[in-house]
Amino acid sequence: MQSLEVKNRTSVDEINKLRLITAIKTPYLPDGRFDLEAYDALMHMQIVNGSEGVIVGGTTGEGHLMSWDEHIMLIGHTVNCFGGSIKVIGNTGSNSTREAIHATEQGFAVGMHAALHINPYYGKTSQEGLISHFEAVLSMGPTIIYNVPTRTGQDIPPHVIHSLAQNINMAGVKECVGNDRIKDYTDNGIVIWSGNDDESHDARWLYGATGVISVTSNLVPGLMHELMFGGKNASLNSKLMPLIEWLFREPNPIGLNTALAQLGVVRPVFRLPYVPLPLARRVEFVNIVKDLGRENFVGEKDVQILDDDDFVLVGRY
Amino acid sequence: MQSLEVKNRTSVDEINKLRLITAIKTPYLPDGRFDLEAYDALMHMQIVNGSEGVIVGGTTGEGHLMSWDEHIMLIGHTVNCFGGSIKVIGNTGSNSTREAIHATEQGFAVGMHAALHINPYYGKTSQEGLISHFEAVLSMGPTIIYNVPTRTGQDIPPHVIHSLAQNINMAGVKECVGNDRIKDYTDNGIVIWSGNDDESHDARWLYGATGVISVTSNLVPGLMHELMFGGKNASLNSKLMPLIEWLFREPNPIGLNTALAQLGVVRPVFRLPYVPLPLARRVEFVNIVKDLGRENFVGEKDVQILDDDDFVLVGRY
Amino acid sequence: MQSLEVKNRTSVDEINKLRLITAIKTPYLPDGRFDLEAYDALMHMQIVNGSEGVIVGGTTGEGHLMSWDEHIMLIGHTVNCFGGSIKVIGNTGSNSTREAIHATEQGFAVGMHAALHINPYYGKTSQEGLISHFEAVLSMGPTIIYNVPTRTGQDIPPHVIHSLAQNINMAGVKECVGNDRIKDYTDNGIVIWSGNDDESHDARWLYGATGVISVTSNLVPGLMHELMFGGKNASLNSKLMPLIEWLFREPNPIGLNTALAQLGVVRPVFRLPYVPLPLARRVEFVNIVKDLGRENFVGEKDVQILDDDDFVLVGRY
Amino acid sequence: MQSLEVKNRTSVDEINKLRLITAIKTPYLPDGRFDLEAYDALMHMQIVNGSEGVIVGGTTGEGHLMSWDEHIMLIGHTVNCFGGSIKVIGNTGSNSTREAIHATEQGFAVGMHAALHINPYYGKTSQEGLISHFEAVLSMGPTIIYNVPTRTGQDIPPHVIHSLAQNINMAGVKECVGNDRIKDYTDNGIVIWSGNDDESHDARWLYGATGVISVTSNLVPGLMHELMFGGKNASLNSKLMPLIEWLFREPNPIGLNTALAQLGVVRPVFRLPYVPLPLARRVEFVNIVKDLGRENFVGEKDVQILDDDDFVLVGRY
Repeated sequence: MQSLEVKNRTSVDEINKLRLITAIKTPYLPDGRFDLEAYDALMHMQIVNGSEGVIVGGTTGEGHLMSWDEHIMLIGHTVNCFGGSIKVIGNTGSNSTREAIHATEQGFAVGMHAALHINPYYGKTSQEGLISHFEAVLSMGPTIIYNVPTRTGQDIPPHVIHSLAQNINMAGVKECVGNDRIKDYTDNGIVIWSGNDDESHDARWLYGATGVISVTSNLVPGLMHELMFGGKNASLNSKLMPLIEWLFREPNPIGLNTALAQLGVVRPVFRLPYVPLPLARRVEFVNIVKDLGRENFVGEKDVQILDDDDFVLVGRY
Repeated sequence: MQSLEVKNRTSVDEINKLRLITAIKTPYLPDGRFDLEAYDALMHMQIVNGSEGVIVGGTTGEGHLMSWDEHIMLIGHTVNCFGGSIKVIGNTGSNSTREAIHATEQGFAVGMHAALHINPYYGKTSQEGLISHFEAVLSMGPTIIYNVPTRTGQDIPPHVIHSLAQNINMAGVKECVGNDRIKDYTDNGIVIWSGNDDESHDARWLYGATGVISVTSNLVPGLMHELMFGGKNASLNSKLMPLIEWLFREPNPIGLNTALAQLGVVRPVFRLPYVPLPLARRVEFVNIVKDLGRENFVGEKDVQILDDDDFVLVGRY
Repeated sequence: MQSLEVKNRTSVDEINKLRLITAIKTPYLPDGRFDLEAYDALMHMQIVNGSEGVIVGGTTGEGHLMSWDEHIMLIGHTVNCFGGSIKVIGNTGSNSTREAIHATEQGFAVGMHAALHINPYYGKTSQEGLISHFEAVLSMGPTIIYNVPTRTGQDIPPHVIHSLAQNINMAGVKECVGNDRIKDYTDNGIVIWSGNDDESHDARWLYGATGVISVTSNLVPGLMHELMFGGKNASLNSKLMPLIEWLFREPNPIGLNTALAQLGVVRPVFRLPYVPLPLARRVEFVNIVKDLGRENFVGEKDVQILDDDDFVLVGRY
Repeated sequence: MQSLEVKNRTSVDEINKLRLITAIKTPYLPDGRFDLEAYDALMHMQIVNGSEGVIVGGTTGEGHLMSWDEHIMLIGHTVNCFGGSIKVIGNTGSNSTREAIHATEQGFAVGMHAALHINPYYGKTSQEGLISHFEAVLSMGPTIIYNVPTRTGQDIPPHVIHSLAQNINMAGVKECVGNDRIKDYTDNGIVIWSGNDDESHDARWLYGATGVISVTSNLVPGLMHELMFGGKNASLNSKLMPLIEWLFREPNPIGLNTALAQLGVVRPVFRLPYVPLPLARRVEFVNIVKDLGRENFVGEKDVQILDDDDFVLVGRY
C-alpha cells in the first residue's frame, strides 16, 4: 500500500538526530472528543520553544484511549498543519500485530515521518515473537522502538534490539530501563532517546543518548530544550527535579493532564481511567510553577488550583 | 473539534470556481487494499492535465466499499501529497447522519478543502429530515451537495437546496437530474456542477453550470479540460460521446474500472460487488481508444483487451 | 468460520413457511443507544400477538444507522432472549459485499435463523455483479432476498432471482415491486413475502404470496396476524388502509417511530436523519387509533399527541 | 441499555461457586478468522470433562488480538450454543474505560453470565482511577476482577479490592499474585480463583480459594476437575507440574497454542505476535503427553511433533 510520493518519504537520518521530542498531550472537549484548537495551540508552543518532534498518541497522548480512526486522524492532522515545522512520529504500535501493521501503514500514508513501536504489552510474547512483531512493521518507514517494562510487563532485551538494528529503518530506541542500559547501546552505535525525564540530562551528556522523548517538555519546552542543547547543566537539571518528581508520582499522564488544566492551556477534561490529582497535589503544582517561574511554562494565564468540580471525567465519548 | 489552523481553512470561493473536478478512481492491490502507488500516479495525471479538484471516495472512487478509517486515511494522504496542487474534496456523506458528522469532522481535521454530501440514500427521510441532515454538517466547512435520485431513490427538491444555500458554507450542487433543473439553479445564483458527463458541455456553455464533476476525466483529463475551458465545442463533445456512452452502460464505476485496467494504469482488481465488463465490451473500448487517440488517454502503455482470467475479484479485504 | 452446532442450524423449510414477519423497530435511549428494555417489550408484544419472525435491523429497524457491532449485538441479543419463540432474521445485507460477508458470518455465528439480503443500493452494480454479490453470502444459511427499487435505485430482475433460487439456502423473496411481479414468482414456485403492507392482503390471498414482512405489525400485530391467517378479509383490509396510508406518507420508519412514541411503548427519541411527523399528522394518528380501537394496538397507555419538545433528535451517539 | 429478560439475568451466586473455569483457547482458520467448528469441539470437550465455566477472549483466548466485534460475536456464539451447559464469562475488560463500558454492555446484552475485568494495563492509572474504572462497569452484571501485575505492570492493591467488594455484582477475584495474597482475601470472605495453575491445588485446598481459572484445563480438563473437586491430591498435583511448567516457559498462550495443534484439535495457525514453541519444546511435549497418558488430554488423534513448516503465522486477518 506504499506511496512513493516525495512528501511521504522521510529518511532515518532526519529522525535519529532529533534531540528534543515531546510526547504531546491530547486535549479534549467536555464530551470527550479531541479539542483540536487547544491541540494546535499546544503544537505551536512546542514549535516556538524548540521541540523538534512530537509523538502523537503515545502513552502520554493517550493513544490507548483512542479508537484507531481518531488516532490516525490526529496524525494526519498534525502532519498537515505542522509537518513542515516539526517531525511527526505516530505511536502506531500495538500489542496486536495486526493493529500495528494496519495503523503503521495508515500513519505513513497520511505522512507521518516515523513510527513509534512498543513491544506487545499485556499479551506479551516470546523473543522470536518480538522479532516477528517488529519485523512486520519495520519495512514501512523510519521506526523508533520503545522499551518500558514497567508498563509492558516485559523487557526488550538488548540482543533483540541489536537484531532489529540491522534494519535500515530502525532509527533508534526510546529506552526507559536506565542509563546503564543506554550506555551499552550508545557504545555500540545505537541511537537512544531517554524515556525518563529525570535521567535525561545525564543520559544526554554522560551516557551518549541523542536526546529525550519527554513528557515534561509539554510544560516547559524551553527548559527541556536548554537541557538537551545547552551543554551539561547540573543546576538546571536539579531545578527541574521537583517538577519531574511531581509529574510522575502517579502514572503519567495524570500529573501532566492536571498541570496543563491548571495552566489554562487545556480544558479540565479527563478520559477515564485517568482522574485528576487531588487538591493537595494541585496546590503543590502552583508552588512549583512559582519556583520555576510562570514564564517558563506554556500558556499565558495565571496558574490555578482548580476545584474538584471543575474537572469533567468522561467514560463514554 | 474544529481546528483554526490556516492550513485547515479553505474558503468557499476557492471551491465554487472550480470547473473540472474528477471523481477519482481508487485502485487496489490484489488483496484488495489500496494501491497507493497507482493512486499517486493517477493523481499526477489529473494535476498535469488540468483537473482542478478531486472527489476522494465518491461513488466512482467506491467510498461505499471502504471502511471509514480507510476513507479518511485516503483523504489525508491526498491532502498531504497533493493538496498544494489540487483541491481535495472528501465524500464524507452518508445515509447515516452520525457517520456523516464523524467523517466530515475527521475529513476537515486532516485538511480536506471541501466536503461532498449526499442525501440519505436507501434509508431516505422527510424533507425536514433532509434539512436536519445537511445542517448537521454544513457548519464544518465548504460543502457541495450531491443530488442523484437514480442512486438515492429520492430527489432533493429545489426548495431544500434554496434553503441550504443560505448557509455560507454551501459551495454549490452536483446535480444529476438534468440541464433544465440546472438552469433553474444557475438563474438563481446557485453554483452547479453537472454530474452527467454526457450533458456537461451543454450544462457549462448553455445552462450556466460552473463545471463538471466528472468520471470521464479519469481517462481523458485533457479533453475534459478542453471541454470545460475551451469554449463551446460541439465537435469535441460529439467526439467524446461514444466513450461516455460506453462508460455508463453499466453502473459506474464498472466501465471506468475496466477501462483503467485496460490502459495499464491500475491493476485489474475489483472489489465486489463490481465485476469487469465482459470481453465484447472490452474489445469495444480498445476501438474507442484508437478512435479518440491513445495519446488523449492517461498512461503510456498500449491499451489491452485483457482476458477474464486477468481480473481479480475480492470479497474479503 | 462455520459452526456446526445444532443450535446454529435452521432449515430453509422453517423460514419459508412463515406468514407474518415483523420488521421490528429499534427503540433508543435519549443518548441514542439502544433501549433494550423497550425492545424486549416490543418483542414480547410481537410474540404474544402471533408474529412468527422478526427482521432485526432492517430499514424499519434502522440497521443503516447502526454500527455493525451494534447490529450484530442486537441480533445476538434477540436470538438469546427470544430465539426459542420466534424466528430471528438478521438484515446482514449491505451495498458492500465485504460488509455483507462479514455481517452474515457473524449473524449466523450468534445464532440468527436466516439472513435478509438487499442488492447493492446506491453503489449499484451489473447483473453479473448482483449474482456475485448474493452468491458470496448464500452459502452461509437460509436467506431472504429483498427487492425494493424505490430505495435501492435498481430493480432485481426476475431472471436474477430465478438464478439465485437454484441455491438450496434461498428461502424466498421480500418483493416490493407489486403483486403482478409476485404472481410471476409464485406461479414458478418461488416463495414470496409482500414488502408492501397495503398490498399484502391481496398478495397473500390472490397472488400466492406466503405472507408479509410487515411494518404495520409493529403497531397492530394481532390484526396483521388475522390478515395473514384468517382467510380473505376485504373488510379488515379496508379497515387497515387509513393506518397504512398514514404510516407511509413519509419514508418509513418516520411514521412508525412517531406512532410508537405516541403509543407510549418507546421513548420519543429519533436518530437523525429521521425526524418525527409534524403535529397535524400526530393528531391524525390519535384519530386513527380511536377508529381502529386502542385495544388493537400495542401497549397499554393512552395514545398521546406529544409536543414537538417531547422529541429528542440525536446526531452523535 | 439494560435488558431485563430472564435469559439475560445471572446471579452472582451462580458465578461465585464455580470451581473450574477454563480460559478457553480461540482456534483459527489459515486466514486468521475464527475456526468455529474447532472452537465448538473444544467447548464440548470442556463441558463433558467437567469444566463449569469459560473465559471467552481472555489473554489465553487472545482477546487482545481480536477486534471488539469479533470478541462480542464469540461471546454471543458461546452463549447461544453452550450457555445452557456452562457459564460464559466474557473478558470485556480493557485499559480504556470507554472500551470496557461498551464491550461489557454488549456482552451482557448477548447473554454472557459474567464479565472479567482487568485493571488498565500499559496505560495504568491512580488508585482513584482504578476504582472509577471498575465502578463504570460493575453495575452491569456479575463481575470477576483480574489481577496479574506481571502483565499489567500494576498491582491491584487489596484495599481497592475491598472497596469494590461492597458492590453486589462483584463475584470475586482472579488473583495471580500468589497464595499468601489469596489467603488474606479468603480470610475476609472474598471469593478467589487462582490464576496460576501451578499454585491452584494449594490455593484451593490450603488457602481458601474457590477454584481456578485455568489454562491447563484446555488440555487436561478431567485432571484439572479432579484437582479442584477430588480433595487434596499432592500426587496428582505433582504429576501435573511438568506439563504446567512446560506450558508457561514462554508467555501464555504460546505453549497452549503449540500443544493444541500438536494434539490435532486445532489447526496450527498463530495470530502474531505469537509464534510456536521451537522443535525441541515440541518434542518435550510429546513426551509429557506420553507420561501423563494421551487419554487424559483432549482430542482423539495421536500427538504429533509437527514441522516448522506446518505452522501458519498470520499478521493481517
